[in-house]
Order: sequence, then C-alpha cells, then structure tokens
Amino acid sequence: MNPPLPPVPLTLEGAAILHQMMRVKWSRWRELSAAAQSEVASEAAHRLGDGTCSAAYALLGHKADLMLVHFRRDFEELAQAQMGISRLALSDYLEPASSYLSVIELGLYESTSKTYQALAEKGVEPHSEAWDAGIEEVLRRQREAMAPRLVPAIPPTRYLCFYPMDRKRGEQKNWYTQPMDERARMMHEHGLVGRRYAGKVRQIISGSIGLDDWEWGVDLFADDPLVFKKLIYEMRFDEVSAVYALFGSFFVGLRFAAQDLDEFFSGRIPLWKPPV
Amino acid sequence: MNPPLPPVPLTLEGAAILHQMMRVKWSRWRELSAAAQSEVASEAAHRLGDGTCSAAYALLGHKADLMLVHFRRDFEELAQAQMGISRLALSDYLEPASSYLSVIELGLYESTSKTYQALAEKGVEPHSEAWDAGIEEVLRRQREAMAPRLVPAIPPTRYLCFYPMDRKRGEQKNWYTQPMDERARMMHEHGLVGRRYAGKVRQIISGSIGLDDWEWGVDLFADDPLVFKKLIYEMRFDEVSAVYALFGSFFVGLRFAAQDLDEFFSGRIPLWKPPV
Amino acid sequence: MNPPLPPVPLTLEGAAILHQMMRVKWSRWRELSAAAQSEVASEAAHRLGDGTCSAAYALLGHKADLMLVHFRRDFEELAQAQMGISRLALSDYLEPASSYLSVIELGLYESTSKTYQALAEKGVEPHSEAWDAGIEEVLRRQREAMAPRLVPAIPPTRYLCFYPMDRKRGEQKNWYTQPMDERARMMHEHGLVGRRYAGKVRQIISGSIGLDDWEWGVDLFADDPLVFKKLIYEMRFDEVSAVYALFGSFFVGLRFAAQDLDEFFSGRIPLWKPPV
Amino acid sequence: MNPPLPPVPLTLEGAAILHQMMRVKWSRWRELSAAAQSEVASEAAHRLGDGTCSAAYALLGHKADLMLVHFRRDFEELAQAQMGISRLALSDYLEPASSYLSVIELGLYESTSKTYQALAEKGVEPHSEAWDAGIEEVLRRQREAMAPRLVPAIPPTRYLCFYPMDRKRGEQKNWYTQPMDERARMMHEHGLVGRRYAGKVRQIISGSIGLDDWEWGVDLFADDPLVFKKLIYEMRFDEVSAVYALFGSFFVGLRFAAQDLDEFFSGRIPLWKPPV
Amino acid sequence: MNPPLPPVPLTLEGAAILHQMMRVKWSRWRELSAAAQSEVASEAAHRLGDGTCSAAYALLGHKADLMLVHFRRDFEELAQAQMGISRLALSDYLEPASSYLSVIELGLYESTSKTYQALAEKGVEPHSEAWDAGIEEVLRRQREAMAPRLVPAIPPTRYLCFYPMDRKRGEQKNWYTQPMDERARMMHEHGLVGRRYAGKVRQIISGSIGLDDWEWGVDLFADDPLVFKKLIYEMRFDEVSAVYALFGSFFVGLRFAAQDLDEFFSGRIPLWKPPV
Repeated sequence: MNPPLPPVPLTLEGAAILHQMMRVKWSRWRELSAAAQSEVASEAAHRLGDGTCSAAYALLGHKADLMLVHFRRDFEELAQAQMGISRLALSDYLEPASSYLSVIELGLYESTSKTYQALAEKGVEPHSEAWDAGIEEVLRRQREAMAPRLVPAIPPTRYLCFYPMDRKRGEQKNWYTQPMDERARMMHEHGLVGRRYAGKVRQIISGSIGLDDWEWGVDLFADDPLVFKKLIYEMRFDEVSAVYALFGSFFVGLRFAAQDLDEFFSGRIPLWKPPV
Repeated sequence: MNPPLPPVPLTLEGAAILHQMMRVKWSRWRELSAAAQSEVASEAAHRLGDGTCSAAYALLGHKADLMLVHFRRDFEELAQAQMGISRLALSDYLEPASSYLSVIELGLYESTSKTYQALAEKGVEPHSEAWDAGIEEVLRRQREAMAPRLVPAIPPTRYLCFYPMDRKRGEQKNWYTQPMDERARMMHEHGLVGRRYAGKVRQIISGSIGLDDWEWGVDLFADDPLVFKKLIYEMRFDEVSAVYALFGSFFVGLRFAAQDLDEFFSGRIPLWKPPV
Repeated sequence: MNPPLPPVPLTLEGAAILHQMMRVKWSRWRELSAAAQSEVASEAAHRLGDGTCSAAYALLGHKADLMLVHFRRDFEELAQAQMGISRLALSDYLEPASSYLSVIELGLYESTSKTYQALAEKGVEPHSEAWDAGIEEVLRRQREAMAPRLVPAIPPTRYLCFYPMDRKRGEQKNWYTQPMDERARMMHEHGLVGRRYAGKVRQIISGSIGLDDWEWGVDLFADDPLVFKKLIYEMRFDEVSAVYALFGSFFVGLRFAAQDLDEFFSGRIPLWKPPV
Repeated sequence: MNPPLPPVPLTLEGAAILHQMMRVKWSRWRELSAAAQSEVASEAAHRLGDGTCSAAYALLGHKADLMLVHFRRDFEELAQAQMGISRLALSDYLEPASSYLSVIELGLYESTSKTYQALAEKGVEPHSEAWDAGIEEVLRRQREAMAPRLVPAIPPTRYLCFYPMDRKRGEQKNWYTQPMDERARMMHEHGLVGRRYAGKVRQIISGSIGLDDWEWGVDLFADDPLVFKKLIYEMRFDEVSAVYALFGSFFVGLRFAAQDLDEFFSGRIPLWKPPV
Repeated sequence: MNPPLPPVPLTLEGAAILHQMMRVKWSRWRELSAAAQSEVASEAAHRLGDGTCSAAYALLGHKADLMLVHFRRDFEELAQAQMGISRLALSDYLEPASSYLSVIELGLYESTSKTYQALAEKGVEPHSEAWDAGIEEVLRRQREAMAPRLVPAIPPTRYLCFYPMDRKRGEQKNWYTQPMDERARMMHEHGLVGRRYAGKVRQIISGSIGLDDWEWGVDLFADDPLVFKKLIYEMRFDEVSAVYALFGSFFVGLRFAAQDLDEFFSGRIPLWKPPV
C-alpha cells in the first residue's frame, strides 16, 4: 500500500498585510487650532503615500472610526509601516481598537490533488527530497503566473468589507479531517458563487494561521456595499460556509485619499476619486 | 436530471440603518453652564431634524443612556450622518458604547419558491442570463409594490426594542442546510405569530450579513413595552426561533423628540408627542 | 384532528424592575469634605425614599460596590427613576458596572394546560376571539388573586442574591421544543424544592425576554446568605435546572437603609434594621 | 416502590472567603514621598493583621499584581473586611481586577449515600421532619469532627494557586444527572490522586453556587509551585475532571507578610518567613 | 487482573517562563525630552541584560507593542524579574496588555509507556514506593540527558510566534479519556511534521496547567515568519491538532537587542544582530 498523500493544500504567499482599526479622539482633536490640525493631517497624508500600498477608510459604526490597510513586501516593511504610524503626531489623536495581521494567500486546491497524484504515480515518496523538489517546481511556476495577484495594489474601490474567519473543527463537523478531494470539491463550488460576482467585487484572501487569532482574513472591495451582503448571503448556503465557516467581526469602510485626511478630520466623509 | 434550484431566498433591500448606542458623560456635562448646555443641545436637536429619519431614545439600563437611530437612502448618506454626530459639540459629552449597521430587508420566502419553480419549468437554467432577468423582473415588481416598507419613516411609537440575531449553524441543527421548502414553511409559521400582534407592534427587519457581526437586526416599535416580552416569548416556541435563533444584546428605549434633547440632558425623560 | 394547543404558558406581569450595579469612585469621593459628603449622601437618601420601591445593597466582590434595586409600576416610572439617579450629585462618584431590566412574572404553568384543555374541549379554536376572551378571563381572575405578588414591596431581608438565567436551546436538549406537559411537570418538581425553603427565602422571578440579555432574572431574599447556596445547589439537580438552565453572573449584597448611605460612603457596612 | 433518594450530597459550610485581585497603580504610587509610602503601607499592614485570616500574595503575570485573601466567620465580617480595604489610603493606589466570593465547603459524598440509605431503611421519608432531623444529626457530628478544617487559618505556604471551576452540564455529559453512586465513585477516585500529594500541597475547597459565577473555588497551598502543575495535570485524567470539569482563570502568587507590604511596594518581592 | 497503568505521561520541567505583552503610551513618552528618553531606555536596557534570559520583541498589530520574554531558573527569580520591570522608570510608559506564565516542559510520551510497562512487568504496583523510585530514576536520567533543552538560552532568531493552547475535552472528543497508546501515537505523528521543519524553526513547549489559563504555551523561533504559517497550517491536519487542539491568541514579534531599546522607543524597529 502506498503511503497516504499529504492532507495540506498547496498555497502561495504574497504581500504581508496589516489592518489597523482606530478610534479618533475627537474631543482632543478639536482642541487643536485649525493650523495645527492641518499640519498634523498633512504629515500623516504624506506618510500614507499615493494609496497603492496604504489606504484609509472611514468606518461605519462604533467599532472604530478609521481603518488603515497596509500591503507590504514582507513583515520587516510591515513592522516599519506600523511603527511609522505610531510616530505620527496624528497618533496622539488615535486609539487602537483592533487590527489584523495576515499574508496574501492563493490556495491551490485545484492543482494540489493533481500534483500529489502525479508525483505519487511516478513513485515519488511524500516529503522525500524529490517530492519537495517536485512541489517547489509547481509552486515556482504558479508563483510566476500569479505574480500580480500575489503583490497587488490595494484595489481602488469606494467600499471595503473586512472580516476574519476560521474553518470549524467541531466534534462532528471538522474541516481538517475531511479528505482532500471533499475539501477541493467544496472549495470549487464555493468559487463558482464568487465567479458570479466577478466585476462587481474583488476578493483578496489572506492567511493568518500562526499570525493572528483567526485562520484567514477576507477583504472584499466594491463600489456598491450591498454587494457585500448579497455575495456573503449567497455563499452562506454553500456547504463549505454553511457547515464549516466561523466568522469574526465585520468592518465596513468608505475609502478616501490620504490627501483628504484633513477633510475627514474636519468632520466630512471625503469623496473618493480613484486614481486614473 | 435538472440542476438544483438555488438555496438563497430572494430579498429586497431598502434604507441603510445605523443604531448608535452612547453613554452620557454626566459629570462632564454638569460642568457646563445652563446657557452652554442649552446651546449644545439645540445644535444637536437641529441636526437630528424632525424625527423622520433620525430618532432619539432614552435607554433603560447601563448598556447606554442614549440611542440614536438613523434611516438613510444609502451608505454614503449614513456615513455622513454618523460623521455629523461626531462633529456636534454634544459628542464631547457622549461615549460610543455600541452600534449596529444594517439595511432594511424584505425576505420574499413566499414568492421565491414559486419564482424559482416557474423559471425552472420554463427550462431556464439557474444563473443564466434569462434566469437573472426573470428574477430581476420579479424583484422590480415587488420593489414597486413594497416601496413604502423599503424606505419608511421611523415609526413614531414611544418604545423601541432593538436586538441583532443569527440563524444557527450547529453541527446537527443548521438553518443553512435546510431545504428551501422547510425554511419557507418555518418562516411562514413564524409570520403567523407576528400577524397576531398587528396593530400592537411594528416590526422592521434589517439584514446585516457582510455589514455587522450578526446576520439580522430586529427593531420592534410599540407603545406598550410589555408587548415586546409577549411577542418574543411567544415566538421563541416557533420552530425557527426555538431551534435556529441566536440572539445578541437587547436595547429598550423611550422615544423623545429631538427638540426635547435639552430636557433629556437636564435629567428628565421627556414626554413623547408623536407628530400628527 | 384538532389544531395543536399553543406551546406558550400563560404569565402575569407585574412591577417593572431595574437592578443597577455601580462601582464607587472611592478616591474621588475621599477628596470631598465631610460636610459635602454628608450633603451628597443625604440628597441620594432622600431620592431613594423609604425602601419600599428602591433599595440599596453593599455588594461583595469586585463586580460592583453598590446595587440599587427599583420596583416601579411601569417602564415610564422606571425610566424616571433611573434618570433620577443620574441627576444626583452622588452619581459623579458612581460608575455603572452592570444592570438588569425585567418585569415581575408569575408563570401559570399549572393552570395553562387546564385552561387550554378546557377551551379546546368547548371547541374554541386557539387564537380565535373566543379563545382570547377565555384566556383574558383566566388572567383577570389570577391577576386579582395574585395582586400582592405582582406589585410587592421589596422584601426587607438583610441579604439579596440576584442572577439572570436562560433556558437552554441546545442541539439536543431544547426547553422550547419540549411539550407543554413535560415542561409543566419539570416546573412543578422544581417548585417542590423551592417550597421546602419557604420561610427562609423569598423568591421573585422577573421576565426579561425582549427586555434584556437573558430570559429571566431571579432575586432571592434571605437573612442567612448560606441559604442561597443550599437552595440553588439543591435545585441544580432538578431536571429543569440540571439539563435546561444557563446562568449569568451572581450578585450578592447586604441591604442597608437609604438614610445610612452616609455611613456606607464613610466606609462602614451599615447595620440593617428592617422597618416594622 | 420507595420514593427516590435525594440527589444532593451533604455538605458542611465553614469560613466565608473573599479573594481580591488588584492591580497596583505604580506610576501614581511612585509620586508619593518615601515617608508617605511608608505610612500608607504601614496602615495597610496593620489592617491585614498577623496573616491568620487575611493574607497578601504577589501575583505572577498581568492579571493583577496583588492578591488579598480573607477568611472570616461569616458574610457580615467579610463585608466589613472588604470595606476596610476600600477605606485604606492604599486603596487609592489599587485597582480591583477580579475577586471571588465563596464559603469553605466539605463535601460528604462518602457518608451521604450511607446516611440516605440508613434513613430510608428505617422507613423515614425523604424531606419529612424525621428525615431532616436525621440529616441534621449527621451534619452536627461531622461538623464537630471537622471543626478545624471548617474555620482554618490561612495555610502559611510560600505559594498559592487559586482557580474557580464548574461541573459540566453538557447535552450528553451532565454531572448533575449522574446517579449519586456514580458521582461518589468518581469523587472517591479523584480523592485518591489528591492523597498522593499529602504533605506537598494543602487544598481548600470552597463552594460558590449562588454566591459567585462558578460553582466552586479551589485554593492550593504549597512551597513548591511545580506541585500545582503536577497535581492538576494528574487529576485532569480522572474521569470527574477529564469529562466534567470546567476551569476559570488561574492565579498564582507568592505569599509575604503584611508587615513587608512596604518592601513589596518599594519594588522587591519580600521573602516569606512563615510564623512559628 | 493487574491494576491499570497511570494515564499521565511523564514530563520534565525546566526554566520558568513569563511572557509580558505591553502597550506603549506613545503620547506620554513623546512628552519626555530626548535626554530623559535616553536615560529611561538605558536603565531598562541594563535591566534586560545580554538577551540570554530576557528578550524584547516589537509586536505586530494592536494587541500590544512590546513583548518581553523572561526565562528564569525558578518562580522566585521570575517574580523578581517581573517586579524589576515594574520598578523601571520605563514602566510609567507601558501598560500591561497580556501575559503568560509557564514552565518549560519536555513531554516523554515515547518513554512513558515503556517505563510503565517495564515496571508493571516486574510486578511493581503503580504509585508504590518502588514505582515512584523507578519513575524518579528514569526522570533523573532523562533530565541529565536533556539538561540543555530544559534551561536554554532564548533562541536568537529575528521572529517569535507565541500562543497558548488546550487539548479539547468535548462531549465526544476528549483528549484526556484517550488511552495512553493512542495519545502517544498521535503525538508521535505530530512530532514527524515538526521534524520536517528542523533547522527552520525552533520550538519551545512550556506547560501551564495550574499556572495560567491554558494548558500549554508554544514559542516558535524563526528567521522567516512565513514558516510559522506553514508549520502550523501543516500541523493543523494532524489528528492531534485537527481534533483535539484549541488555540488562544497569537503574538508575532521582531526581536531586537536590549541596547537598541532607545531606537525602538524613538520610533524605528531596530535591526537584529544575533550575538555571535
């Protein structure tokens, strides 16, 4: 009998991501003179840059007022970005309310089974040097093909919906004890729903096992926020969501340009003109 | 064999809703002179308007002292409304304690099965262009018929009961894996209970999947608060509630007119004279 | 076949109740002069009245230092009572830690089945006008008979134990899907235990479905606090508690007279002399 | 058929216990002059007395810095002890972080069955007057025999481990629906493990049903803190722990004498010289 | 029939560990002059020493900004280390956010069965004096052989991932009721995954039963933080993790030298040059 194939799906890792949810200390802010406010906002706007790799969102509800999202090449850069925010004069007027640390992940369920099968048929033993080389070759090719999705610019939509999630490990329903083929089938069906929303919503999945308190983070980018409700409601009936998904807190925000930070802090939600 | 019909019930979306629960910083407030208090309250009253789309409630218990409820046409207006509250001088005397973000939702369980069946019998394939057009036609007609319920004024009752809820996705009892017909049957029975309270309570359901941490928000409006207890207790024995409902925190408040904010802040629950 | 009888037990509602648990800001309090302390305490004592419908308890443990319990005729009066506490100078030295909102409830499990059966045997259809009239007649009679238990004075014992509770709605053990007769039987057995403690403890049950985060509040009044432990431990083996009860936080306090508030705030637990 | 025997094990109640976990406001403390610090610490040391019935522990970790444990004859004395701490000048530099209220409990599982059986064989009906008298006679004898364990001095070991616990009431595994004999058997096996640690650890069990949020509090006293880990790990494999135990937070502290409070507050863990 | 063998695996205990997660009060810190900042940081750097037994990490995300990890010979030294941090001038600018108390544990599942079996075959009765002596002899030998792993220096990698965990005690899936052999088998398979990451990650397991709120703490040390995600994701499919593991919060940090504390506090993540 052959040794069992590994249960772990292949994944590609891309940009390191930090979500920072912060409350604004409005009372303290209003004690600043208009000139000082403008200077403080301007320093922060400069730090956030052109919106490619750091973006600002006005959040709805009380969980936080402002969300900053940072995409960086690695955790060193991400740590410096976080520290850079702490150093801003603006940070005296912000209070950290939540955050999420993750790394962009492309799950390769579709090709994992094929790859494992192919290697096994050639008689390559799982976790042998030859096996690892075979896997690495597949990953290398996929990484090249998917490079733009691994280190994307932050999609320039008006609305963002972020939430973390887990796969259930219940006493009877346990994602991690399902056979690879079953998981691949369920992920495939799940993907079909997502595909129906192509053009209306852009989804970026990031992995956070070993990094933060949930297993994945989900960012949905759209210009119509009702799409978040429709997409996630429809997906909730998928087997993989209905039975195996656990959800954390949801954060919904409106994007605005860093250079409009002063407008946000003077009490108006800035309009959003995506860069051309 | 025909492809399976979609499991998702049709819904109509209406006004965007924000509930803001806030604690009053009474000590700090009392440091203001009577003239300053009056000015601050008056600015806030002006902002809240005539009560059609923003309403104020004195809450019972310690979870919060004041609840503001905002109904708006879309999330852009809702975000501006929220920011407008932050800008008030009054907000220096308020501390956000909780909030809820949702959108009015009319669930069309009754007509979903019929519509899906009818399309399927015509040989229309689910999610094809023809299918989507057929669905959109049904929604368009219903949206027109139900327009007043989609963008209502805030009902002018003395009492409001608000709570968020989920449908259970347990290991054995899972709402989202129940067949459409079963769900429709349970929702129908649930509706029969509600109908017995017609005239005593007005219920507004809002959806929050993808928007906030629970799946739905429920607002009950009544002039007799005991009706909340009776209605919800009776419903708790319905199959859909007994087996599948999970509840968040309950907030019960007494409505008062924005122009009576100064009375509220001077330490008396204002009487409520609904507009004629 | 006859239509099924309703699953909801009949209940009578009485006084509206608010429990307020508060931490004392001792450091800030000690900054007051003795004269000012005395004046502040005296204003509060006056507000609390003679102890019939508002009572003060010194709490054990860190959850809160002081608990105020208010019994009022309705929610309007209760809201004014709460606001009245907020207005006190004393409230600058108190911090709300918890609270509970409920209404005295007498569950009529014993007579519900009989009443439903009798109406059904007369051929009266559930929820018809005749049915509602029959039910209302029963409730009217019971309400009269039980009037003193519906709007009681706060029992004048030294000790109070308060906790909220739910009935379990688990995937296998679900109170709300048990037949009425089974529930009535379990409640009856539960009552037998309570009866053995007659004279040692007075129990007031209040309903909070639709009002606060648990389904019921329980107040136990006794002069010997060990009775709380013994009664509740014994009840925990009842089927209805062992299988179906979920408990919130427990608060145990020592009653003192409002006119002794100054003694409490000067750092001594006042003795308790129940009114004669 | 004979009426069923009661399911409740007999217990003896002893001293009332309060655990107070507090954070030290170090920054504020350091603003005091050395002389003032000394005076404040000295007042507190005087209040805590000779360590027989109030003890101080330096806690490890961030949950709290200081734990005070009070053993008192009854809840009146305990409430005065708590209030006495609030009155100290020291309390301006302490912030309550947690607490636990309970009463020393000796569970008499071993003799309960025998007693119930014996009474039943004499034809005494459960809960009759004769039954209650018979039970009271057993309790009186046991209370006498166990008097020193009911109102003990606080054991003078260097280390204390405190945690609260519940017995599980799950949908399938429910301690409270197990027959008395099964529970007695499991408790007996549990006790055998404890006995192997005699001389190394002293265990004091206190009951808190109806008093605080868990059913029991456990205090383990030892001079070697690794014994806590070994004992509790070994017990975790007992049926009663493995299947039926739920645990709250664990607090581990180092005892020091009240007269060394000034040393603790000047930033050194005092040595511990148990009284001879 | 022979008496059953004990279910508890043998373990060796080593260094006592404290993780301290702290938020930096940046606003307050910035009020210090550069000279004062430098002095405060320098005092703290001196206290932390050369990094062998106390290490500093810049944390990613909002849970905390700074994590200090202390390895000490025993709990006395650990308590002094904790108190030493409280005494620093720096502690006025830090706020405790979390912590974890544990002791390095080497689980000897592999040799436990063998040892128990061997003793049983010699007719030695479990927990007899001879049994205890036999066990102690095995532990003594292992303790000697594994001495460097019991009291290690803190591994000098750039990244640390810390999280606490439990073994599940569910109603159907219960680690503690599994036979020793089953547990040993699952732990062995779990170890095989870990071995594939040898050279890339160093794992230190510490036990915290009876010490803190979870059963174990896990520290992973690596220079590439993606290894945390890969290792833990792969392990999640192991039977012992998939079915029996429960996880607490994850903390990921970047190591820097104590002498670079001033750089950290002036708002830059210091580079890390491991000692040679």
